[in-house]
Amino acid sequence: MKNVPFKGVIAYPITPFDENEKVDIPLFKKLTERLILSGSHGIAPLGSTGVMPYLSDEEKEAVTEATIEQTKGRVPTLVGVSNLTTDKTVHHAKFAEKAGADAVMIIPMSYWKLTDDEIVAHYDTVASQISIPIMAYNNPATSGVDMSPALLKRLLEIPNVTMIKESSGDIQRMHYLRKELGEDVAFYNGSNPLALAAFTAGARGWCTAAPNLIPELNVDLYKAVEEGNMEKAREVFYRQFDLLKFIVSKGLPRAVKAGLNILGEEGGNLRNPLKPLSPGETEELKNIIKTLVN
Amino acid sequence: MKNVPFKGVIAYPITPFDENEKVDIPLFKKLTERLILSGSHGIAPLGSTGVMPYLSDEEKEAVTEATIEQTKGRVPTLVGVSNLTTDKTVHHAKFAEKAGADAVMIIPMSYWKLTDDEIVAHYDTVASQISIPIMAYNNPATSGVDMSPALLKRLLEIPNVTMIKESSGDIQRMHYLRKELGEDVAFYNGSNPLALAAFTAGARGWCTAAPNLIPELNVDLYKAVEEGNMEKAREVFYRQFDLLKFIVSKGLPRAVKAGLNILGEEGGNLRNPLKPLSPGETEELKNIIKTLVN
Amino acid sequence: MKNVPFKGVIAYPITPFDENEKVDIPLFKKLTERLILSGSHGIAPLGSTGVMPYLSDEEKEAVTEATIEQTKGRVPTLVGVSNLTTDKTVHHAKFAEKAGADAVMIIPMSYWKLTDDEIVAHYDTVASQISIPIMAYNNPATSGVDMSPALLKRLLEIPNVTMIKESSGDIQRMHYLRKELGEDVAFYNGSNPLALAAFTAGARGWCTAAPNLIPELNVDLYKAVEEGNMEKAREVFYRQFDLLKFIVSKGLPRAVKAGLNILGEEGGNLRNPLKPLSPGETEELKNIIKTLVN
Amino acid sequence: MKNVPFKGVIAYPITPFDENEKVDIPLFKKLTERLILSGSHGIAPLGSTGVMPYLSDEEKEAVTEATIEQTKGRVPTLVGVSNLTTDKTVHHAKFAEKAGADAVMIIPMSYWKLTDDEIVAHYDTVASQISIPIMAYNNPATSGVDMSPALLKRLLEIPNVTMIKESSGDIQRMHYLRKELGEDVAFYNGSNPLALAAFTAGARGWCTAAPNLIPELNVDLYKAVEEGNMEKAREVFYRQFDLLKFIVSKGLPRAVKAGLNILGEEGGNLRNPLKPLSPGETEELKNIIKTLVN
Repeated sequence: MKNVPFKGVIAYPITPFDENEKVDIPLFKKLTERLILSGSHGIAPLGSTGVMPYLSDEEKEAVTEATIEQTKGRVPTLVGVSNLTTDKTVHHAKFAEKAGADAVMIIPMSYWKLTDDEIVAHYDTVASQISIPIMAYNNPATSGVDMSPALLKRLLEIPNVTMIKESSGDIQRMHYLRKELGEDVAFYNGSNPLALAAFTAGARGWCTAAPNLIPELNVDLYKAVEEGNMEKAREVFYRQFDLLKFIVSKGLPRAVKAGLNILGEEGGNLRNPLKPLSPGETEELKNIIKTLVN
Repeated sequence: MKNVPFKGVIAYPITPFDENEKVDIPLFKKLTERLILSGSHGIAPLGSTGVMPYLSDEEKEAVTEATIEQTKGRVPTLVGVSNLTTDKTVHHAKFAEKAGADAVMIIPMSYWKLTDDEIVAHYDTVASQISIPIMAYNNPATSGVDMSPALLKRLLEIPNVTMIKESSGDIQRMHYLRKELGEDVAFYNGSNPLALAAFTAGARGWCTAAPNLIPELNVDLYKAVEEGNMEKAREVFYRQFDLLKFIVSKGLPRAVKAGLNILGEEGGNLRNPLKPLSPGETEELKNIIKTLVN
Repeated sequence: MKNVPFKGVIAYPITPFDENEKVDIPLFKKLTERLILSGSHGIAPLGSTGVMPYLSDEEKEAVTEATIEQTKGRVPTLVGVSNLTTDKTVHHAKFAEKAGADAVMIIPMSYWKLTDDEIVAHYDTVASQISIPIMAYNNPATSGVDMSPALLKRLLEIPNVTMIKESSGDIQRMHYLRKELGEDVAFYNGSNPLALAAFTAGARGWCTAAPNLIPELNVDLYKAVEEGNMEKAREVFYRQFDLLKFIVSKGLPRAVKAGLNILGEEGGNLRNPLKPLSPGETEELKNIIKTLVN
Repeated sequence: MKNVPFKGVIAYPITPFDENEKVDIPLFKKLTERLILSGSHGIAPLGSTGVMPYLSDEEKEAVTEATIEQTKGRVPTLVGVSNLTTDKTVHHAKFAEKAGADAVMIIPMSYWKLTDDEIVAHYDTVASQISIPIMAYNNPATSGVDMSPALLKRLLEIPNVTMIKESSGDIQRMHYLRKELGEDVAFYNGSNPLALAAFTAGARGWCTAAPNLIPELNVDLYKAVEEGNMEKAREVFYRQFDLLKFIVSKGLPRAVKAGLNILGEEGGNLRNPLKPLSPGETEELKNIIKTLVN
C-alpha cells in the first residue's frame, strides 16, 4: 500500500527575512500558524514560494525544524529538499526525515540538462537513504528539464516515490498521467490557474501559495469538487481566478508579501536581488483583494 | 438579444473524394445523415476536418448546398466561409446565408500576419453584408494569428458576431474569455483533448470531428456536464481520451477516414498531397476503437 | 550536372493592385523593370512578397506571363507555383514552364501538416511533369511545416529539384545543410536579417524584396562577399540592417509599397484584408530610408 | 577608456573531481596549463563548463586561486562569480578581485524571473564593490531570464560593466547589440555553433570549452577572421562544426571529459547527478575527433 499523506489544499509558506536579510524564524512560524488555522490540509516549506534556492544549508535546516515544531502534527508536512547535487539532496532529505517531516518534495534541478537515466539515479539514491515518501515534482520552467509521463512512471517504481506534482501548466499532462499511470496515481496540481481543470481531471491535491491570502476560497474550491458540485466549483474558481493569475505573474514571494501587507499582516522583507512589487502593482493587487475579502 | 444557435456537440463532417479526387457529394450527404441520426446537436461543414482550404469555390458551394438539403432544419448548420481575401470571404458568407445556413464560421486566415485593425475590418466588412450570426474562430496553429481576448472583445461588439470558437489548446484562454467578456459570452471549445476542462470552464459547446467515430461518447460527456455530474463526466472523458488524442495527432481528415473504414463505413478518398494513414497507424486506431465500440 | 540558374541577389517584386483591387499588370511590369535595371541577378514573381496566395489562378498566370515578357531573358526568372493541392501545383508549374520561366519555387503549403512521405510525393509528382529546375523552399512560419535537412536531402535526389531556399531564420540550418548535403549544395537565403551570416556560411544567393527599395546596398553586399572582403561586407550589411529588420517586421508587401511611395514611385494598392502601414510606421520607414538613399 | 582585457579565444576549463567527488585541484591546474600552452587568449574558470553552480563556496575559492597561480599572468583570467543572491555574488566577486582575477563574469541567475530593475540593481551593487571589469552574460537557457539589448545598454552604463557575452544562440542579437550599442561595444560569443557568424558580425572574442579538445582549430578560426580571410574562416569553421555541435548537445562537462580521455588525457570524474557519456556517445565523439586531430 502506497504511503500518500496528502489530499486537498497543500499550503506553501513564504520564507520572510528581517531588515538585514536574515531569515526571520519567529515570523515564519506565525505565518505557518495562520495557514494551519485557516484550514489548509498540509504545509510545504522550502518550495519556490519559500525561496529555497536562495537559502544556505543552515537556513534550510532552521526552516525545516521551525515547521515541524509549529505544525505539531496537526497537518502533514512536505519539505522541499531539492539540490543541484545528489549528495546535498541526500543530506537535506535525511535532515527532513530526522526532523519529523511526513514527506519530502524533490524537483530535478538541472543547470546541465539531465538525461532520464541521471534523473532516475538521482531519485533512486535519495530514496534509498530515507523511508518517508517522496513527491516527484515536474516544473520545466524552473528546473530546466521536463519529465515525461514515461519518466515519471519509472520514478514511481521506486518504492517510496509515491506522489507527483505537475506544474508544467498544461492540463493535458494530467490527462496523460492518469491514462498512463492508472486511476490510482496520486498526482497534485502545482499550477494555480489550472486549479479547476486539475481537480476535474482527478488531481488529489493543490499545491499553492494562495492560502497565504485567500484560504477560504481555496478550501471552498476543494470542497465543491469533493461534493461533485460542478457549478459551485466553477463559481468559486472564477471568483479567485484574477488573484491566482496575479500572484503567478508577479512571482509568488513578491506577491504574497505584498498581499500580506495589504491584509494588515507582517510579511517581512525579501532577499536581494528580489525586490517588492512596485506601487502600481501593489495597487492592482489591492483592488483584486478588496473584492474577495471582507 | 444575441442570436446564438448552438449548444452541445457540433459535428464536423469530412469532405470525401472519389477515386479521381472529385468531391463525392452523395457520400458527403450520407456521412452528414449519420452525424444527425447519432445525436449531434449541430452540423459544421467546410471546417478543417472538411478540408475547406483544399476546395475550389464551386466545390465549397456544392458542399454548402448539400448540407442544407440533407439537414432539413433538424439541427442548426454552421458553414465555414473563411478565405485569405476579404472579397472571397464576403462571397462565401453571402452564399451560405442564401443557401439557408444558420450561421457562418470565420477564422482570420493570414499568410501575412494581420494586425488587430485589419482583422476587425475584415470581420466588419463580412458582417455588414449578411444577417446570420458569425462564429469568430481562434486557432493560431492553422491561421498563423493568435487573437487575444481583447481583440475577441472588439469582434463581439459587431452585432452579428455572437460566438467564439477557441482552439489555441490552452484552457487558460477560456478562463480569460469568461473573465473579460462576462459570464454570458458564448464560447465553444475546438480542441478535442480539452473537452472536459472546457465544459467545466463553461464552454457552451464542443466543435469536433469525433462524432464521425464515437458519437455516443461525445454526447454522453455533454450530458454528464449538463447534469452537473462531475464524476460521470470525468469517467466518460477518460474513456474517449485516447481516441481524441489520436485523431488530433494524425490529422482529422486522415484519421476520420481510417476510422470510418474500421467501423465498416465508406470514407471516400483523400485529395493529394494528403495520404491515408500508414498500416501501423491504422492498426493503432483499430485497437483504440475496439475498446470503445461494441 | 545540376541545373542551377541563380547566383547573387534574386529580387522579389510585389504584386500591385488598382483602386478596385484588380492586379495592375502595367505597374507590375514597371516595377519589374526597375529591379532588372538596378542590378538584381534574378527575378522571382509570385512569392510571399507578391502575395501569391491571395491571387486567383488567372491572376497568377497573368503575372507569370508579364514577368517573362518584361524580363526578356536579361536575367533568369523563378516563378512561385506553390499550392495546397498537388494538382494545382502541377497546373501552375506546367504553366510557368510553358510561359518560359527558368525555374519554379515550391513551398509545401500545408493546412494539414504533411508527413515527410507526403512532401516527397508532392515534389516528385510535380517534378515529373516539368523539365525546368525546382527550388524547394523551407519556411515553417508560413507553410506550417519545417523540412529537416534529412528531408531536403531526399528532395534533392529528385533530378530537377536542384536548389534549396532556407527561411527558417536560423543560421544553423545552413550549416547543417552544407555539412549534410555537401559543399556543392546550392542553397539560398530567404531571411533578410541573416544576409551576412548566410553568405559567410556559403549561400549562393539571397532571395529578397529589399531591391525594391535599396538595390545598390543589396548588390554591394553580394559583391563584397564575392571579393572575400569581410570588413566591407560587414560594413555594408550593418548599413542596411535597420531597413531589412523593418520590412520583415511589418510584412513585405505593406513595407515595400510604403517604401516605394517614400521614394517617389508608384506602389499601387494592397488587397484586403491587408492595409497600408500606419502614418507612424511610414514615418519610421522614411527616417530609415533617408539615411540610406541620396 | 573602457577596460576590456579580452580578445580572441577565451577557454573554459572543466572542474575535474576525484573518485570521491572532491574537486581535484592538481588536475585542474594541469588542464589549465594545457589551455594556455595550446594558444588560448584567456582563461575562464567557474563557468558552466566548470560546473560552478554545483560547487560549494570553498570549492569555488580554491578553483579561483588555482587559476591565478597557474596562469601567472601569461593570459588574462575571467572568473565566474554568479550567484542567486546579491550578497553571495558580491562575496565571490570580491574574492576573485583579491585573488588577482583580471575580470569577473556575471549571469543574472534567477530562480524567480527578475525584473529589469532588479537586474540593474544586482549588477550595480556588485560593481560598486570591486574595481575590475565585469562581463555581463546573457544565456536565457540557463539563467531563465533573457536580457534585451535595451537592458544590456543600461548595464553598460555602469562604469566597470564593460563587456557582454551573448549565448542566446540567435545571431540577430549580436546584430542588434552592435546597432544599438555602437560599433565599439565589446561583445563576445558564447554559442559554439555561432562562432563563424558571430566573428563575422564583429564579436571580439569567443568564449568556449572547445580548446580543451581542438585548440588549434579554434585559434585558426580566429586568425582567419583577423586576417579578413572569409574563405579560410569558412573552411576552418566547417571542419570543427560537428565537434562544436556534439559538445553542446551532450553537455560541455560530460563531452569535454570524454574527449580528454579519447585524446589520452586525464579528465577526472563528474559530480553526481552528472554521469559520463554512454559508450555509444563516446564512440560517436571518437569518430568526430579522429578526423580532426592527428
